Amino acid sequence: MLLVLGGFMLLPAAVDAAVDHPDWRGFAISAAGTMLAAAALLRATRCDLAEGLTLRQAFLLTPMAWLAVCAAAAVPLYLSALEGLGGSVTNSVFEAVSGLTTTGATVIYGLDTAPPGILLWRALLQWLGGIGIIATALAILPTLGVGGMQLFRTESSDRSEKVMPRVRQIAARILVAYLVLTLVCAIAYALAGMGPLDAVAHALSTISTAGFSTADASLAHWDNAAVHWIATFGMLAGALPFVLYIRLMQRDYALLRDPQVHGLLGMLAVVILLLTGWLVLHDRYPPLDALRHAALNTVSIVTTTGFASADYGLWGGATTGLFFGLMFVGGCTGSTAGGLKVFRFQVMAAMLRVQFLRLLYPRGVFPRLYGGKPIPDEVMGSVVGFFTLYFVCYGVLTIALTTMDLDFLTSASAAVSMLSNIGPGLGPVIGPAGHYGAMPEGAKWLLCFAMLLGRLELFTLLILFMPRFWRG
Amino acid sequence: MLLVLGGFMLLPAAVDAAVDHPDWRGFAISAAGTMLAAAALLRATRCDLAEGLTLRQAFLLTPMAWLAVCAAAAVPLYLSALEGLGGSVTNSVFEAVSGLTTTGATVIYGLDTAPPGILLWRALLQWLGGIGIIATALAILPTLGVGGMQLFRTESSDRSEKVMPRVRQIAARILVAYLVLTLVCAIAYALAGMGPLDAVAHALSTISTAGFSTADASLAHWDNAAVHWIATFGMLAGALPFVLYIRLMQRDYALLRDPQVHGLLGMLAVVILLLTGWLVLHDRYPPLDALRHAALNTVSIVTTTGFASADYGLWGGATTGLFFGLMFVGGCTGSTAGGLKVFRFQVMAAMLRVQFLRLLYPRGVFPRLYGGKPIPDEVMGSVVGFFTLYFVCYGVLTIALTTMDLDFLTSASAAVSMLSNIGPGLGPVIGPAGHYGAMPEGAKWLLCFAMLLGRLELFTLLILFMPRFWRG
Repeated sequence: MLLVLGGFMLLPAAVDAAVDHPDWRGFAISAAGTMLAAAALLRATRCDLAEGLTLRQAFLLTPMAWLAVCAAAAVPLYLSALEGLGGSVTNSVFEAVSGLTTTGATVIYGLDTAPPGILLWRALLQWLGGIGIIATALAILPTLGVGGMQLFRTESSDRSEKVMPRVRQIAARILVAYLVLTLVCAIAYALAGMGPLDAVAHALSTISTAGFSTADASLAHWDNAAVHWIATFGMLAGALPFVLYIRLMQRDYALLRDPQVHGLLGMLAVVILLLTGWLVLHDRYPPLDALRHAALNTVSIVTTTGFASADYGLWGGATTGLFFGLMFVGGCTGSTAGGLKVFRFQVMAAMLRVQFLRLLYPRGVFPRLYGGKPIPDEVMGSVVGFFTLYFVCYGVLTIALTTMDLDFLTSASAAVSMLSNIGPGLGPVIGPAGHYGAMPEGAKWLLCFAMLLGRLELFTLLILFMPRFWRG
Repeated sequence: MLLVLGGFMLLPAAVDAAVDHPDWRGFAISAAGTMLAAAALLRATRCDLAEGLTLRQAFLLTPMAWLAVCAAAAVPLYLSALEGLGGSVTNSVFEAVSGLTTTGATVIYGLDTAPPGILLWRALLQWLGGIGIIATALAILPTLGVGGMQLFRTESSDRSEKVMPRVRQIAARILVAYLVLTLVCAIAYALAGMGPLDAVAHALSTISTAGFSTADASLAHWDNAAVHWIATFGMLAGALPFVLYIRLMQRDYALLRDPQVHGLLGMLAVVILLLTGWLVLHDRYPPLDALRHAALNTVSIVTTTGFASADYGLWGGATTGLFFGLMFVGGCTGSTAGGLKVFRFQVMAAMLRVQFLRLLYPRGVFPRLYGGKPIPDEVMGSVVGFFTLYFVCYGVLTIALTTMDLDFLTSASAAVSMLSNIGPGLGPVIGPAGHYGAMPEGAKWLLCFAMLLGRLELFTLLILFMPRFWRG
């Protein structure tokens, strides 16, 4: 992974060199260093993995790999000349973690005049992080039994025996789907009027549902309906299960029948229509503009991207509460989106329905169903455990942030924004018109931890803090 | 129940008549009307209950009884001459529901000059509500299987066969314990320097963990360490399981071994010590005063009482986040306290512990324990269902309140304060120094619903909204 990361550093180096910006040296040095370190590590740890990893090794390997990649990715940012970023360990690490976890929260103010290398590197980090997440969610987390993803292990292994025989083949096809979607998105942005660098950077950011922009005002910088609709559909594409795209290529239309996809699209349709109506009734925008802004900002929060086409913090009324609630949803499992995710809500809703029925018919037997199939007890327990742990982490994080003299709305929204890898929070400091640069140093490190925690589905990181993990 | 309520109305009538305040007429008329209505209802619905109630009838009866009592209790408030209360249906109903559910949120500003009848009536409502809640939690909810209280059905029915043979006997003894605690508390307040009416009203409010005061400034009005410590220990006494007091009278020291009691006291001790340290370090109070204010306000929120000895909203730093978090805890089941309650957190913690262990040892079998005994699957499911429904209601309520142009902190804290029957929220409007009088009409009705929802443990009220409940 470090080898790949080092290779990708050559791209911003080339771009900066082309416009004669001195940052190219930092990227080149980092590329050489990272690749050398990777080669040394490869040589030092060469062994036969035929026996496979033990469960503990797998649990240890996943966060370690993420930490190593985040550290290496921060180096060229630290070496850059950009004010507020270069020379600051905290800000460089925050920006790198935010990119790789596809959070998209930035500490940089002054993006509009930033050198192209930095902008491209931030975008690439998100894109690499996005594919890393799909791989983790498909190959590693279901095996480890984290957060109810066993549901998808059973499903994909059942069917893959018939449809697709090998994991490598699935991985290769997902990579192709990811590349094609990004390419289509970049061309669309360019045709809609964005410059080449802006189009590429935003495409990388859109399909990975991450949210770094090349302008401080995010997508509000482009007051262009075409750009906004491309972003909306691009983010949606990034938040659907990628496995279903592969099936689509094989003329299997599972995408259209998937309960997660139905749940996500249905929920979005209701919220967007209500919000559009509200914006029109309160004379904030004419109808078509209202629909565009409602769609983009709602999709952006729910898919955990974090783009903004307007400062929805100023829309007033119920919108703050609504956007706060939407931050807890998240996209589909097996996509680049973060958060609690749609299927977990569906599993919880099935559980709640059965609870009500049992009250009324104490002797009745009611199966909990997901997509028409009974949910195994083990999955039910994992999902409940995930929700519980999410809210425990959320509460602890919010209170910890308030101890750093941050106001309540900033703390409460930063906590969910980082845990769900969204990006912006609510309120004047970190809302859609703000950035994380002014946060205290300690808070930035805490938020880095929260981003990784959310991205690794909580359990995978927290299990390392169990004394029992290290025993024996 | 209406007969008893009507009888109690004669007390404020007598007090107001004694000081020659015209409100006595309203109380007398309400008493006569309520008792007449009760007699008519008794005569009209006389039937043989030997066959018992069906499950549906029991589910219907509980909320209906609460609604009828709330409506009757609001009448004398509506007939009073107090400005802002008399003549306002919304405010009278809000105050009555707030009292009977032991929430203690008031719409009255100007308590210090209010007539004694109103003050006594508000206090009595809480006290009657408190004993009603213990009865509901002991006799009705475990039978209905709501929210995991089956755990206590099994326990108490197991042991009661040996220790106490009849339900009536338990109920009578709990009433005696409740009366004795209230009496001791009132005498203590009087000895500490409160006037007779203030002492009685606060004792009724303390043991029922409700929180109505006879002063706008709540207990901050009495800058008296003795009063504050009496309140602190009184609230704690009201938040412990009353069944254990009866056992204590029989020299059974289960109170000292109970896992809920340990959990509550341990948590409180840690929070109070941390908060005291913080207050001393930030020079807010000298050490002993810091301990007193930390203890009173922490115990007040956790026991869902809602007294305040200071405006902790102005303590700054992490205290807003801390108090917000504490609002979600709640006291022990089988007490007058509301909220999610300690045992449910302990059940969830046991579940989470097993989730972590299962990740590490996928083939291991780990029992989920509460107080050293395995938690039945049925109870586990009920507790999880309760948590889920609580947070669903909480989210919907918060968003609904923000649509009424209330700010985020006010909406978010009012929602938890009402659902957990605490009383004050956070922020300038409804914080410890504010009141609910300035809330919009619609919000007040919504909050009335939320108070009843919380008090009836969510399921008991929401099941009536299931179409299936009314079918067949």
